[in-house]
Amino acid sequence: MELWFAEMHTPHIKLGFRFKKEIAHVKSRYQDIHLLDTHEYGKLLIIDGTVQTTEKDEFIYHEMIVHPPLFSHPNPRKVLIIGGGDGGAAREVLKHGVSEIHIVEIDEEVVKISRKYLPTISSAYGDTRVHLHIENGSDFIKHAGKFDAIIIDSTDPVGPAESLFQRDFYENLKEALNPGGVISQQCGTPFYHPEELCGVYSIVKDIFKHAAIYLAYIPTYPGGMWSFIMASDVPLERRRKIDFKTKYYNDEIYYSSMVLPNFVKEHCKKD
Amino acid sequence: MELWFAEMHTPHIKLGFRFKKEIAHVKSRYQDIHLLDTHEYGKLLIIDGTVQTTEKDEFIYHEMIVHPPLFSHPNPRKVLIIGGGDGGAAREVLKHGVSEIHIVEIDEEVVKISRKYLPTISSAYGDTRVHLHIENGSDFIKHAGKFDAIIIDSTDPVGPAESLFQRDFYENLKEALNPGGVISQQCGTPFYHPEELCGVYSIVKDIFKHAAIYLAYIPTYPGGMWSFIMASDVPLERRRKIDFKTKYYNDEIYYSSMVLPNFVKEHCKKD
Repeated sequence: MELWFAEMHTPHIKLGFRFKKEIAHVKSRYQDIHLLDTHEYGKLLIIDGTVQTTEKDEFIYHEMIVHPPLFSHPNPRKVLIIGGGDGGAAREVLKHGVSEIHIVEIDEEVVKISRKYLPTISSAYGDTRVHLHIENGSDFIKHAGKFDAIIIDSTDPVGPAESLFQRDFYENLKEALNPGGVISQQCGTPFYHPEELCGVYSIVKDIFKHAAIYLAYIPTYPGGMWSFIMASDVPLERRRKIDFKTKYYNDEIYYSSMVLPNFVKEHCKKD
Repeated sequence: MELWFAEMHTPHIKLGFRFKKEIAHVKSRYQDIHLLDTHEYGKLLIIDGTVQTTEKDEFIYHEMIVHPPLFSHPNPRKVLIIGGGDGGAAREVLKHGVSEIHIVEIDEEVVKISRKYLPTISSAYGDTRVHLHIENGSDFIKHAGKFDAIIIDSTDPVGPAESLFQRDFYENLKEALNPGGVISQQCGTPFYHPEELCGVYSIVKDIFKHAAIYLAYIPTYPGGMWSFIMASDVPLERRRKIDFKTKYYNDEIYYSSMVLPNFVKEHCKKD
């Protein structure tokens, strides 16, 4: 017998993963969480039917949501991660030799499942510099203190992450940044949902002096093309070279990931 | 009732397309050809179960197999396309104001179906500068004359295209280039089949003085990350700026598409 899970990318396109067994299934207060053991991608974390991360390709997402903003900063010390309960973003932030990481995850069950079943992703929780707060990110940011970088590693802008894509939230983020600070956020697939990316981009570039869209290849996400935004009140440039091991990011990708195909630029009316 | 076609990307991963109806199905001497009318991607051409092109995203593949090599040449006049029976690559080559395009397609049925059902892709056949040869590309190249650019727009290296991925073939290609001439070829998905890309790359860089791997986002191809190789005996640099309309390629992408993630470089032992 073959077991398959399929994610609907649109009502007419689906990506199917053959799996060996379901490892865990939790209905939390906020979300429906599944963990499957797949043949191709290792363990696959699914929230509300949407692929979150897999053991085989998580390195791309986690490196790319973290390293472009962190290499834009000359010396990041204190970093806030909003969402990111699986710990993958924190693992990458630790490579920068920071002094303090705060993870604000709304759903404790995501943390529990990740710590129990995804040790290579959640390893950062074993580091004393990593502090976990189970709280809504848009509330936390109002009393959070100041950070050199803030990574918004959220689910898509429907469901519990909705407040993380609103104007107020970005204004609060800006308040919570030290001078020279930088933010990044995942913004979905420009191929199927350019309106999601362009909506966030138009807010962010209004609030910050400098904003950039950048892209990464993520095979398990819709369209394989994933967008991120980074923003700051200082110009976005690579301020340090990489001095640790990565599987996707390198010094050249800092700039090449910001080069957008015409159809993406045109959707967001960007030159 | 819902109709679905699924392409197996690996034995454990499949991409499903919901379709309205099958428009055509031809078993040619060489291949099994299907044309489906899909909900998301418009018409979808499938050969031997493998997605070849769709109306919605074909622009990415056709622009990227043509423009990087052609903009590497200061003044391409005569261009050879090996494969490419759908006409999409020829359509992009025509934008460069060339004087002559030769398409060498082994399977006449691919041309017939494309001309009949995919008019936006096959439009180049209406241009008097486009000459079609129904022949095996690896034979044709031995008596082909000389070209400024040769585009190898083939299916994958199993089945009828197998001879287009062998050492002899590239030696013949080199012979068929005018001084300053350039070639390009699609090389599959580095995510699932790095050995395919690296195999071709190791041959090509042995035969040509300069060779480069470059990438494009193609949502309907396995992994969404597609690789190409271009090669020449002159250095690969952008020798002209773009002066016509495209939906994917732009002047910056010429260079950014050659920046490779670490895992691709490491597979091909390339710095």
